[in-house]
Amino acid sequence: MISFAAAHGSDELTPLDLVRRATDAVLRREGGSLLQYGSSDGYPPLKRYLQGRMRRDGMAVELDELLITNGCQQSLDLVRRSLVAPGDVVVCENPTYTGLWNVFDTPGIRLVGAPVTSEGMDLDFVSAALEQSKVKLIFASPNFQNPTGRSMPLASRKRLLELAEKFQVPVVEDDIYGVLAYNGRELAPLKALDASGLVIYLNSFSKVGFSGLRVGWIAASRRVVERLTAAKQRADLHTNLLGQAVLEELGRRGWLDKHIRKLKKLYAHKLSVLGGSLERHFPPEAKVHYPDGGMAVWVELPGGMDAAEILVKARDRHVLFAPSRYFYFQNPRHNAFRLCFTAVTDERIVEGIRILGELLREEVRRAAAGKRQRTASSEVALV
Amino acid sequence: MISFAAAHGSDELTPLDLVRRATDAVLRREGGSLLQYGSSDGYPPLKRYLQGRMRRDGMAVELDELLITNGCQQSLDLVRRSLVAPGDVVVCENPTYTGLWNVFDTPGIRLVGAPVTSEGMDLDFVSAALEQSKVKLIFASPNFQNPTGRSMPLASRKRLLELAEKFQVPVVEDDIYGVLAYNGRELAPLKALDASGLVIYLNSFSKVGFSGLRVGWIAASRRVVERLTAAKQRADLHTNLLGQAVLEELGRRGWLDKHIRKLKKLYAHKLSVLGGSLERHFPPEAKVHYPDGGMAVWVELPGGMDAAEILVKARDRHVLFAPSRYFYFQNPRHNAFRLCFTAVTDERIVEGIRILGELLREEVRRAAAGKRQRTASSEVALV
Repeated sequence: MISFAAAHGSDELTPLDLVRRATDAVLRREGGSLLQYGSSDGYPPLKRYLQGRMRRDGMAVELDELLITNGCQQSLDLVRRSLVAPGDVVVCENPTYTGLWNVFDTPGIRLVGAPVTSEGMDLDFVSAALEQSKVKLIFASPNFQNPTGRSMPLASRKRLLELAEKFQVPVVEDDIYGVLAYNGRELAPLKALDASGLVIYLNSFSKVGFSGLRVGWIAASRRVVERLTAAKQRADLHTNLLGQAVLEELGRRGWLDKHIRKLKKLYAHKLSVLGGSLERHFPPEAKVHYPDGGMAVWVELPGGMDAAEILVKARDRHVLFAPSRYFYFQNPRHNAFRLCFTAVTDERIVEGIRILGELLREEVRRAAAGKRQRTASSEVALV
Repeated sequence: MISFAAAHGSDELTPLDLVRRATDAVLRREGGSLLQYGSSDGYPPLKRYLQGRMRRDGMAVELDELLITNGCQQSLDLVRRSLVAPGDVVVCENPTYTGLWNVFDTPGIRLVGAPVTSEGMDLDFVSAALEQSKVKLIFASPNFQNPTGRSMPLASRKRLLELAEKFQVPVVEDDIYGVLAYNGRELAPLKALDASGLVIYLNSFSKVGFSGLRVGWIAASRRVVERLTAAKQRADLHTNLLGQAVLEELGRRGWLDKHIRKLKKLYAHKLSVLGGSLERHFPPEAKVHYPDGGMAVWVELPGGMDAAEILVKARDRHVLFAPSRYFYFQNPRHNAFRLCFTAVTDERIVEGIRILGELLREEVRRAAAGKRQRTASSEVALV
């Protein structure tokens, strides 16, 4: 099976040797304290490392404005537990990461989906939602939004913050793909532009090769971090110390940044391989959005076509992708899909896209001829 | 400061070398897959190891009846999320682990506290509660209950299961201290006696030297595990793989059991040191319950005395313990306290108990003379 379905990292550039060296170093240095209970807010050296890293990226945070979590999924869950109650309205992108709406799929919470345009989250829609309802939180992924790969221009980031300030609504910024900007500098995160302290910044090490360690973090105002930390303590006391210490060691020694530089180069190369294949094999009716980073491209088919139906046939030919309707929690669009290229070898990218292109050409012809037939739907596990 | 406050393990017998060897072995063998995303239900080799371990202890479970979590705190949290809704009544021991009632301190959930007798949870009380209300869950810690150290005799275990079956109420069994039975064989856990499939069994590696790794597990019926696994996925996708793999390696190689045997010997020795000191220094008015295992002893003072007030004075003399009222979520008793002896060196046990004994003798005299004075209360972080 050639799978473009889940947003997994590459096996080709695993930081295994670095992790082995870092693990040995921290166990020698920190000794038994890594095996004992730790602080709910996180392993202090990792918090200090993250503080330095965020400063470098234009985000000045104090240590008590940081909380270490088991990755962004837990961060989302802690935000819901601490800041959202039944009766609340939450605005987020639609389509979005399925793990987000899984968390908010709770009786009494109203999740309002803002469409995603070529410039990211539709801010006219957000503005109207803020006018119409008492909104409790806004979720935004300004960098390489999952699943569309769209990024928000600087002017839009500023406008979103103005809206948040005007209505005094916190904005949860999911920056998990932000570090994977292949070409040149990343745009400033909302957190770096935030003068009002309303941004709750989420990030993790899951998309740069360390998802199995389950370590992420939240940066927010002291008041918010206090509430999130209390929720973290109730949820699981604290995040595993070995993973936190390994990442701090990798970070402090500069190995993490070096690994990320290599990863960006590899992924940029894979994106160009994918792009070449798409241009050669996909029918012109399939519109491809190429991002400047992240782990996936978004493909839009002509209206009326259903990517989930095509997936059933693609699976028969041993190719998987993630159909658009997996990512919509309301008003689903069916005629698009996400292709993650980071976990697939070059050869299999070329082969998979050739097979998929052939299938799509058949499907486009069939659709044009009005011969569409409905088939059973199919599910693929996603991240 | 000599702290008998938190239920931490000993630094004297840290399995650090074993962990270093196990970590190196799993990183060599499993390679990059430990750094990638894993299954929400747990790392398959660890599940197989736990299945074998539970079989050995008289509990036959299938692999799909097991879920790996970030330790017992997360297990409690997942149980609440999956099985308890506003309006539900939950019965548990009172006093109990504070992390339990932190989890259930949710609007609309009614937590009913069963007193803890010399034979564990008061089953006449439980029976009456089942008659009076529609109870959703019963929590029980049959082995070395925290904080009292009481254990439930076999006949009581059977009666609790009969009650559960009669009223068709699931019993959550917290067995985190069960492995620390110093003298002879452990009593059969409820799970081993359970014919009806109503027991939800919780355990972890946190009390045998690996709390920082945050790895625990739940064994329950397939239907319950399915719901808990879905909650786990929403909560944080999965438990960290490195910690799971390290524990599996330690377990499979027999190092875990060997370490536990040494730990039990060490703790039995510490308990005898503590016992000797208590007999020498504590006033006869302080009644001590000596358990056959676990990490703490429970001391009861004459009625009218307040352990939290005494703690303020003990802290001035550089000794800490956990006053009883920390553990009561209703009808608090003030005249008892928990002494955890596992993290304290022999010398400091002797010294701490000498100081505390002196203070208690003063306080008993003062109480007898009716000269009690109220002082500010004090808080100590607990596990």
